[in-house]
Amino acid sequence: MTLENNEKQSTLKTVEWRDNKVVMIDQTKLPNQLVFVTYDDYNQVAEAIKTLVVRGAPAIGVSGAMGLALAALQSKSNTKEDFISDLEKAKKILFDTRPTAVNLAWGLDQIMEVANEGSSINQIKESIIEQVKKMAEDDIRINKTMGKNGSELFDNNDTVMTHCNAGGLATVGYGTALGVIRATRESGKNVKVIATETRPIQQGSRLTAFELKHDGFDVSLIPDTAVGYTMANGLVNKVVVGADRIVKTGHVFNKIGTYQVATMAKQHGIPFYVAAPLSTFDMKTNAEDVIIEMRKGSEVTSLGDKKTAPDDIEIINPAFDMTPPELISGIITEKGIAKPPFEESIKKLFDKDF
Amino acid sequence: MTLENNEKQSTLKTVEWRDNKVVMIDQTKLPNQLVFVTYDDYNQVAEAIKTLVVRGAPAIGVSGAMGLALAALQSKSNTKEDFISDLEKAKKILFDTRPTAVNLAWGLDQIMEVANEGSSINQIKESIIEQVKKMAEDDIRINKTMGKNGSELFDNNDTVMTHCNAGGLATVGYGTALGVIRATRESGKNVKVIATETRPIQQGSRLTAFELKHDGFDVSLIPDTAVGYTMANGLVNKVVVGADRIVKTGHVFNKIGTYQVATMAKQHGIPFYVAAPLSTFDMKTNAEDVIIEMRKGSEVTSLGDKKTAPDDIEIINPAFDMTPPELISGIITEKGIAKPPFEESIKKLFDKDF
Repeated sequence: MTLENNEKQSTLKTVEWRDNKVVMIDQTKLPNQLVFVTYDDYNQVAEAIKTLVVRGAPAIGVSGAMGLALAALQSKSNTKEDFISDLEKAKKILFDTRPTAVNLAWGLDQIMEVANEGSSINQIKESIIEQVKKMAEDDIRINKTMGKNGSELFDNNDTVMTHCNAGGLATVGYGTALGVIRATRESGKNVKVIATETRPIQQGSRLTAFELKHDGFDVSLIPDTAVGYTMANGLVNKVVVGADRIVKTGHVFNKIGTYQVATMAKQHGIPFYVAAPLSTFDMKTNAEDVIIEMRKGSEVTSLGDKKTAPDDIEIINPAFDMTPPELISGIITEKGIAKPPFEESIKKLFDKDF
Repeated sequence: MTLENNEKQSTLKTVEWRDNKVVMIDQTKLPNQLVFVTYDDYNQVAEAIKTLVVRGAPAIGVSGAMGLALAALQSKSNTKEDFISDLEKAKKILFDTRPTAVNLAWGLDQIMEVANEGSSINQIKESIIEQVKKMAEDDIRINKTMGKNGSELFDNNDTVMTHCNAGGLATVGYGTALGVIRATRESGKNVKVIATETRPIQQGSRLTAFELKHDGFDVSLIPDTAVGYTMANGLVNKVVVGADRIVKTGHVFNKIGTYQVATMAKQHGIPFYVAAPLSTFDMKTNAEDVIIEMRKGSEVTSLGDKKTAPDDIEIINPAFDMTPPELISGIITEKGIAKPPFEESIKKLFDKDF
């Protein structure tokens, strides 16, 4: 199915629970084709997360939970003990796909909690299905609230740089960083966007430029090497990115390259914002203990079918990097905006909530 | 002709004057095939420079001069006035291919000087041919001297990051930044290299990783987004890059992305060196007056044959950026190493020479 024949992006769901199956947009096919895939086996969902059919921390969180819901439906166990053991096994397989994104653990843990609380297996299965539907709805509602909070930081006629894709395609819908940009436009302000290509997987060109262009935004694309040039030439007023994990000190783990975008922004006095729901915060782990996953070298050594590097050389291809709090102007959440010093302001966001 | 069937890289010439023709390695075919192309028309050389068959400021300088030598041989004029006018016409076509690299103007001007000084047309043609041969020899000799000067800045077991390709393939042979790395190894020190991919044209993976691997160096490849990660994780001791133009204040114009590599190096206290011959210096133009050429958007919107971005969006694809002197630890030349403050130290390099 090509994009031209399809309904509007804004009404699309990145991931959805439908008729006891998981339906996803296959993001590896974008921007050329809009293809939906349907899964009824949690192993398929694990593979989809691993191969970036679905990506983006919030979308992965909900996808993981929906994968675990499939595992619940797949279980043939008759005792709660065996049933929970089936879920634990599936949880491990789902979790190991993308260990850096804290939302995955968060999504899986929510399902385990529902499972542990329930009594009969059938009742637990029903409760799990209710829970994953609620998580998908919550995701969109939270993004819209976050967007509204963040929109106050942006001025009319701002040009905003973003890295990777923290858009509708990284969430169930609407987006985190791009949700803030959408809400800014909805508040009546004119806003332009510069998207970085985001090598090696090209989420910026394939996904961010795609979804913003689709929604009628004025979006420009740059290679990752041109971040410094565009800032030095006064083409950028603000930066907003998403996050895969934020720890209590305000260290932000996000797509590889975020750290240098933040550094360049600081160098040019350009405010650098992070937009992420509270589910992205990991209040237990220290920054230095976060494991950054390494991805396969072949992502860097070829373009399409064309080999672009010699054989047998080492490839360093980390999925994420860490942006320290001193480079961050504010962290936009559904509970408000945390400003430096972050250790205090992040704590306050959670005090309100829990 | 495939690489495997060919003689060693170290004996290869990037560009060569042979039997009144210009022979070049077609660098657009690397790293998969080592193909030589032969030109007898200056328009072909202009097209080769434009389409990056040959690239790298010093190689472009010599290629431009050789193109102009072809124009001299092609001229049917009988008077010196008409002959010079033919050369001026060819010079303009050759110059317009890559206006940022100062070496191109430098190479072309040398040939015009020889032409203007000569008397008979036949004698001028002979002098021009002698001149382009001498320029090619000088290029290698200068690079070796520069390499030796620069090697003193590097320690045993250093891991050196480089951006783009300032190697043998950017010069007639040996290289500027990679010449320094070669000379460091020749001085008995062990040295590892991290090459950045260098989007959008991939000179880092296609050329730098290729030529270093070919010469037996331990070379790793990273996407441009991983510069910050590798530095933050202590994987880089020093940086050395080439230059397309250096102005008298020490502002360095080089491949897009150099500025952010330099900024990240500064942030991590990693020395950042530039290696370039005196022919790369433009002592007349102010930094703010240098025109940075923009390249076509299609370089950014597809990978091989695969489209990776939506249609009809603006692409910002500058070929170069400017690194300010405060980010530079030293500029390595064949006349010695300029250190901050650069306005003084660069002037001294030229005082020695002229």
